[in-house]
Amino acid sequence: MAHPGDLSALERLIAEGTVRPAEIAAIIGKTEGNGGVNDFTRGYFTQSLMALLSRHLGEPADALVKRIPCVLSGGTEGVLSPHYVVLCKAGAPLDAPAPTAALALGTAVSPILPAETIGRVAHVDSVAAAVQAAMKAAHIDSADDVHFVQVKCPCITSARAEAAKARGRTVVTSDANRSMALARAAGAFGVALALGEICPDVVTDAALLTEFKVYSNRASVSSGVEIEANEIIVLGNSRRWSGSLRIAHRPMADALDIGAVVDMFSDLGINAAPQVSEMQRALLKAVFVKCEPDRRGNVRGFRHTMLDDTDINAQRHIRGALGGLVAGVTGDSRIFVSGGAEHQGPDGGGIIAAIADSSRDGGQPCAS
Amino acid sequence: MAHPGDLSALERLIAEGTVRPAEIAAIIGKTEGNGGVNDFTRGYFTQSLMALLSRHLGEPADALVKRIPCVLSGGTEGVLSPHYVVLCKAGAPLDAPAPTAALALGTAVSPILPAETIGRVAHVDSVAAAVQAAMKAAHIDSADDVHFVQVKCPCITSARAEAAKARGRTVVTSDANRSMALARAAGAFGVALALGEICPDVVTDAALLTEFKVYSNRASVSSGVEIEANEIIVLGNSRRWSGSLRIAHRPMADALDIGAVVDMFSDLGINAAPQVSEMQRALLKAVFVKCEPDRRGNVRGFRHTMLDDTDINAQRHIRGALGGLVAGVTGDSRIFVSGGAEHQGPDGGGIIAAIADSSRDGGQPCAS
Amino acid sequence: MAHPGDLSALERLIAEGTVRPAEIAAIIGKTEGNGGVNDFTRGYFTQSLMALLSRHLGEPADALVKRIPCVLSGGTEGVLSPHYVVLCKAGAPLDAPAPTAALALGTAVSPILPAETIGRVAHVDSVAAAVQAAMKAAHIDSADDVHFVQVKCPCITSARAEAAKARGRTVVTSDANRSMALARAAGAFGVALALGEICPDVVTDAALLTEFKVYSNRASVSSGVEIEANEIIVLGNSRRWSGSLRIAHRPMADALDIGAVVDMFSDLGINAAPQVSEMQRALLKAVFVKCEPDRRGNVRGFRHTMLDDTDINAQRHIRGALGGLVAGVTGDSRIFVSGGAEHQGPDGGGIIAAIADSSRDGGQPCAS
Amino acid sequence: MAHPGDLSALERLIAEGTVRPAEIAAIIGKTEGNGGVNDFTRGYFTQSLMALLSRHLGEPADALVKRIPCVLSGGTEGVLSPHYVVLCKAGAPLDAPAPTAALALGTAVSPILPAETIGRVAHVDSVAAAVQAAMKAAHIDSADDVHFVQVKCPCITSARAEAAKARGRTVVTSDANRSMALARAAGAFGVALALGEICPDVVTDAALLTEFKVYSNRASVSSGVEIEANEIIVLGNSRRWSGSLRIAHRPMADALDIGAVVDMFSDLGINAAPQVSEMQRALLKAVFVKCEPDRRGNVRGFRHTMLDDTDINAQRHIRGALGGLVAGVTGDSRIFVSGGAEHQGPDGGGIIAAIADSSRDGGQPCAS
Repeated sequence: MAHPGDLSALERLIAEGTVRPAEIAAIIGKTEGNGGVNDFTRGYFTQSLMALLSRHLGEPADALVKRIPCVLSGGTEGVLSPHYVVLCKAGAPLDAPAPTAALALGTAVSPILPAETIGRVAHVDSVAAAVQAAMKAAHIDSADDVHFVQVKCPCITSARAEAAKARGRTVVTSDANRSMALARAAGAFGVALALGEICPDVVTDAALLTEFKVYSNRASVSSGVEIEANEIIVLGNSRRWSGSLRIAHRPMADALDIGAVVDMFSDLGINAAPQVSEMQRALLKAVFVKCEPDRRGNVRGFRHTMLDDTDINAQRHIRGALGGLVAGVTGDSRIFVSGGAEHQGPDGGGIIAAIADSSRDGGQPCAS
Repeated sequence: MAHPGDLSALERLIAEGTVRPAEIAAIIGKTEGNGGVNDFTRGYFTQSLMALLSRHLGEPADALVKRIPCVLSGGTEGVLSPHYVVLCKAGAPLDAPAPTAALALGTAVSPILPAETIGRVAHVDSVAAAVQAAMKAAHIDSADDVHFVQVKCPCITSARAEAAKARGRTVVTSDANRSMALARAAGAFGVALALGEICPDVVTDAALLTEFKVYSNRASVSSGVEIEANEIIVLGNSRRWSGSLRIAHRPMADALDIGAVVDMFSDLGINAAPQVSEMQRALLKAVFVKCEPDRRGNVRGFRHTMLDDTDINAQRHIRGALGGLVAGVTGDSRIFVSGGAEHQGPDGGGIIAAIADSSRDGGQPCAS
Repeated sequence: MAHPGDLSALERLIAEGTVRPAEIAAIIGKTEGNGGVNDFTRGYFTQSLMALLSRHLGEPADALVKRIPCVLSGGTEGVLSPHYVVLCKAGAPLDAPAPTAALALGTAVSPILPAETIGRVAHVDSVAAAVQAAMKAAHIDSADDVHFVQVKCPCITSARAEAAKARGRTVVTSDANRSMALARAAGAFGVALALGEICPDVVTDAALLTEFKVYSNRASVSSGVEIEANEIIVLGNSRRWSGSLRIAHRPMADALDIGAVVDMFSDLGINAAPQVSEMQRALLKAVFVKCEPDRRGNVRGFRHTMLDDTDINAQRHIRGALGGLVAGVTGDSRIFVSGGAEHQGPDGGGIIAAIADSSRDGGQPCAS
Repeated sequence: MAHPGDLSALERLIAEGTVRPAEIAAIIGKTEGNGGVNDFTRGYFTQSLMALLSRHLGEPADALVKRIPCVLSGGTEGVLSPHYVVLCKAGAPLDAPAPTAALALGTAVSPILPAETIGRVAHVDSVAAAVQAAMKAAHIDSADDVHFVQVKCPCITSARAEAAKARGRTVVTSDANRSMALARAAGAFGVALALGEICPDVVTDAALLTEFKVYSNRASVSSGVEIEANEIIVLGNSRRWSGSLRIAHRPMADALDIGAVVDMFSDLGINAAPQVSEMQRALLKAVFVKCEPDRRGNVRGFRHTMLDDTDINAQRHIRGALGGLVAGVTGDSRIFVSGGAEHQGPDGGGIIAAIADSSRDGGQPCAS
C-alpha cells in the first residue's frame, strides 16, 4: 500500500485471477494512522476497498460494508509496514471430515450498538452471540479449534456521546480513548464467554478494565470511530475444510516474551530461533499480535514510560515495540500488531497467532 | 530512575561503598524525554548528577561537567526503561600485559565547537583528535581492540544559529533536527577516521549525510542541545586492564537483524536464542544499540512510515522498534538505544555492543 | 463535517437546490489531519467529494478531480473547526462592466510536475503560468484586483524521491517536510511573478527559502502528498461579475498583528474591534489566513518554541495560535488557517483575506 | 529564558539590585514542556531556581521549595514565550488603610497529600484551608478583593498509584491525565469554597468533573508530577498595601471571548481594542489565563477536534489558541496560559487576570 486509499495490489490480484472478488470473506489490515479516535485512515481504506469490490461485484458499497468484515488497526509504528490480509473462501464445506484439519473461517456482524451500551455488559453479550454465529458459519464445532477471533467494536466519540445525551441516556465515559479501551474489554469478555474460557458470572460492568485476571487467549479486539456494530472474524482449524493453510496461537506473558513467538511458529513447523529462514518466510501468510503497555508501569521489574507520556499515546508505544520484536523473528515487517489488549492474553502481555502454508513450496504472499 | 532528576540509586550505591565517586569516569544513560532539540531531561539529569558528585568530591559542578563525560540519549519509547550506566575505573594500568584482555576505558572532551563548525569537516577533525586522545587514555594500542566509541556532539539551536549570524558566520542549516543529524554524521566520520576504518580523502562536507557507504562499525553518536563540546568515551578490551568485564560489538545490517544481536552475545559467551536465560542475564552490565530508520523508506522491501510521520519523530519510531527487539532477546528493558545512526553501522542498520561479566557469578547490576 | 469523508452538508444543499453541482468551480477547506506528509484526511475528503459530484454530474471522478480545484489544508488545531467553502459560479460574464465590482473567480490546473522539478525554478514558472490562466478565466484584467490566490502544490514523498532517483534524477531534498516548504516557496514566487509583485530576476533556486524579503501579499500556498499538479484558484473583485459578495486582503506583519485583521474587515465594511457582531457575522462567507512561525525564533523580541519542538510540528503550533486570534475577532471558528507561509506575506507574518456579503441581510452561510 | 534551567535573567536582576532575594514571595511561570505528566521542565526549573536562591539566601534548597511557592505551567504552544513572573514583597503592611488599594499577595503551602486523597473532597478541603491562610497572610479581609488564586496540586503518577496500592489504599483513577484533571477540579472547588463563591453542600466527590455549573471565577489550578503538597498564591488589591500595581480579572464565557480580555484591561485603565499600545504595554507586568477545550466538542456551535486528537493533548491545543488570542490583544507573547480550567471560570470558557502599573511611566518589565 502506498497510502491508505491504495488498493492497487488487490486490483492486480483480481485482474490476474488470483483473487476472486466473490470469494472474499474478510479483510484484516494495518493502516498508517495514529490508531486513535481521530484516525481516519481506516475509514479511507474501507471506502476505497468497498468502492473497488462494488465495481467488481455489482453490489452497493453500503451493503458490502455490512456483509464483509474489514478489520483495520491504525498505527504502523517503527518498522511496521501498512498491509492487509485478504481472507478468501472457495467451495463448500466437506461432507466428511478430512484426515487433517485446515484453516477455517467464519464471520458475523452484530446489530448496531447504541453509544450507551458500548463498554458495558450488553456489549459483551452482543459480541458473544456474534462469535458463536461466526463459529457456526466456520463449521468449527469445538471451541478448542478456534485459534484467533478478531473483533472490531465501535467506540464513543464526542458526537455520539452528545447524541446519547440528547436521547436521555448516559454513556459509560465521555473520554474517547477510555471508551475505546472499554469497548475492547467488552469484546474480549464476549469472545472468552463464547469460547468457554470464562464463566458468565464473572461478566459484570465493574469487571471490565478492572479484573485483569479474566481474559481470553484467542481474542483480538480493536475499536474505532468508523463503525457502529461489532464485526467478528473467527479463524481456526477444521476437518471440514481443505487446503494447505493452518493457524496456531500462543499467549504472550509480557512484552518481552519472545519464547511465545518462537513456540507459536514451532507449532506451525517453522523454525524461528533466532529468525525464520528466507525459504520458510514465504510460507507465512499472516501474523497477528495483540499487546498492551503493562498497566503497573513496569516490564519485568523495570519502569517503562508508556503510560505517562503526553506526547505519544501508550498504544503507539507498545505497537512499535512488539512490531520490532516480532518482525525481528519473522524477518518481515508486515505484522498486524494491535494495541489495546485489555483482557486479551495475560495481563501485561498479549497474544500471537499466525497462518502458514504447511505444504513445502510456499505460494502467493499476502497482498500489501 | 523515577524521573530524570532522580539519582537516588547512585546515591545509595555510593553510601554502600559499591561505587566510589572518585573512580567515576563516565556515564552513559537514557532519559525519558523526546530525544530532540527540546529534550531537557538530559540537562536536568546532568545538573542533578553533577550536583551530587560535587557534594561528594568537593569539586565545583562546572568543572566536573567538563571532566566526566555524561552521555545521555533521550527517548525511552516502547518498553525501554530510563537508566544509566556508571563506568568506574580503579587502580593503575598493569605494568605487564595480562594473559587475557579486560574492559578498558578512556575519555576525552574536545574544545568548545562554534555553531558554524558543527556538522562540517572541522567537526570531524575535532572528534577524531578526541577519540585518539581517549584511546591513549584507555591504554588501548590497536584500533582493533576498540569495540564502542560513544560521542556526544553539540547541535545548532535557533538561538545558536542567531548568535553565529550575529558574528557574521553561517551555520550549515537552520533546521534544528537537521543540525543534529549532521552533527552525528560528523561524529561518526571522526570515529571512523580515528580508528582507521576510512581514509582521510573521503572526509568532505558534502559526504556527510550523503555517502552512506562510508561508516564506522563502532561509533555511537548522539547530539543534544545541552553541550557545546564533543564528549568521547572509548570502550575496548586491553591486556593492560584487569577485571572480569569484557565488551563485544557487531554491526547490524538492518532493523530486523536479530542475528547480529545473538551473535554479539555469543562473542561474550552468552546464549541468546531466543532469549538470554535468567541466570546469564545477571552477567549483562550494559547493552548499547545505535539504529536508524532506513532512508529509502523500506525495510527488506516493505514500506515503513517512519520518515513521513509528522506526529512522531522518525528517531522515536526506530528506537521503540529496536528497543523491543533487543529487550526481547535480553529479557531486560534497560537498553541504551539511540537513534540517529547516520554513518554508524551499515546504511539502514546500526550497531550493537554489550559489556558482560565473564566470570560465573555475575555481580552487581548497573544502577537504574 | 463530522469527519473528513462527511459531505452530507453539501449533499443537503444540493438536494435543497441551494447549490447546483454544475456551478461548483472550486473548493477550499480545512480537514482535521496533521497537515503533514502523512495527512490522508485530504485524500479521503477529495475522494468522497468527487464521488458525490460524479453521482450528480455523471462525469467520472478521475476527470472531475483534474477539473475542479479542491484545495485542502490539514490541521484544525485549537479552536479551528473542520469546514469547507464551496465556490460556485453562475451565468456568463457581464458584457459591459457594472458600476461596482463583485467577487470574481478563476481556476487553473498546471501539467503534472515531476518530483525533480518540485521546489525549483521550473516549479515557479509552472505556477506563474497557471495563475495567469486563472486570472484570464476570472475576467480580471488588472493584477491589482486580485486579492487572494490559493495554490496547492505537490511535494516529494519518500516514494516519489525513490522513483525520481530510479529515473536518474535528483530531487531537491529527500526530507519530506522540507520538500513541502520548498514547494510552498515556489508557489509563492509563482504568484508574485504572475501578479507583478516581483521581478523575474529575483527568481532563482537559491532564493527559495532564503530571500525572505521576496514575497507575495496575496499568495496562499499549500502542499500535499495527494496531488501531482499545481491547482490554482484566483479570487478578486471585477466589474464583469455581479452579486453582493466582495473580497479584501491585508498582509500581516507578524503573528500578533490583530490590527491587520481588524483593518481587513473594515475594508469590507465590517466593524471588528474587538469582535464582529452577531448580526454582521452572518455576512462573513469565508476567512483565509496564511501564517508562519517566525524563522528567527522570536515574536516581537520574545523567544517562541515552535521551531525547536520535536513533539508538535511547527506549522501545527502556528495554525493553532492564529486560529485562536482570528476566531476571537470573528467570533466564528470556521477559519481557513494554513501554515507554511514562506514568502507569503511579510517574513514572520502572513496574509489574511475574507469574502463578505456587502448587502444588508447576509444570506446563506458556507457549508461545513 | 533560553531553556528551563536558565535563571540568568533573575541572576542579573539580583546582581543589579532590582530584585532582593529575601523579598521573593512566589514565582509563576511557563516552561516549555508538554504540560503533562511527563513534563520535567517544571522540576528542572524549580531545581535551578532553588539552587540559585539557596546560594543567595544561605538556606537549603529543600527548605526553600517548601516555603516559596513556585507555580509553573508547562507548554508554550504557538506564540507563547517561556517566562516567569517573580512576585516580591517588601516592607510591612500599612497600619492604616491607604486611600487606594494596591496589589496584595499572600502564600501558603498545605501539608503533603497522600495519593489516595488527590481528586477527592479531602483535597478540596486541604486547598480551601490553605487559601484562607494565604488571604490572611495577604492582609485581604474581604473575598471580593481577591482577583486571582493560583493553586498547584500534585497528581497521581503510575508510581504513586502503585505506592498507594501497596499501602492498601485505592486512588481515584490510575489514568495519569485524568488524575491531573481531578486534582485541578478539587483545587477549583477549594478556592470557590474559600472565597464563598459556592456553598459547602455542593462539594462532593461526585461533583468533581461532573457539575460544571459549579465554578470559581478567580481560581487558576495547575497540577503536576513534581510536587506533593498544594501550593497557594492569593493575589488581590488591599488598602493595607502600597505601590503602583493593581490586579483585575474577568471570567471568559468561551474560547472566543475577546470581549472579556478587552474589558479586563479596561478595568486596569488600559485600552486594548484591538491592541494595547506600545506605550501602555510597558505597564503590563503579568497576564494570567486559564482555559479549557469545550467538553461538548464545539465552540459556539461549530465542532472542534481538540478532545478527539490522539496526537496532541487537548490542553496543548487550547493553550495555543488562547495564547494566540490574548497575545494578539496585548502585543506581547509572555502570557501565562494554563489549560485544564475545569470549574475555573464558566464551563467551556475560563478566566483572565492581569497585573498592571497604574502610574504613568511603566517601569521594569517582568523577568523572562
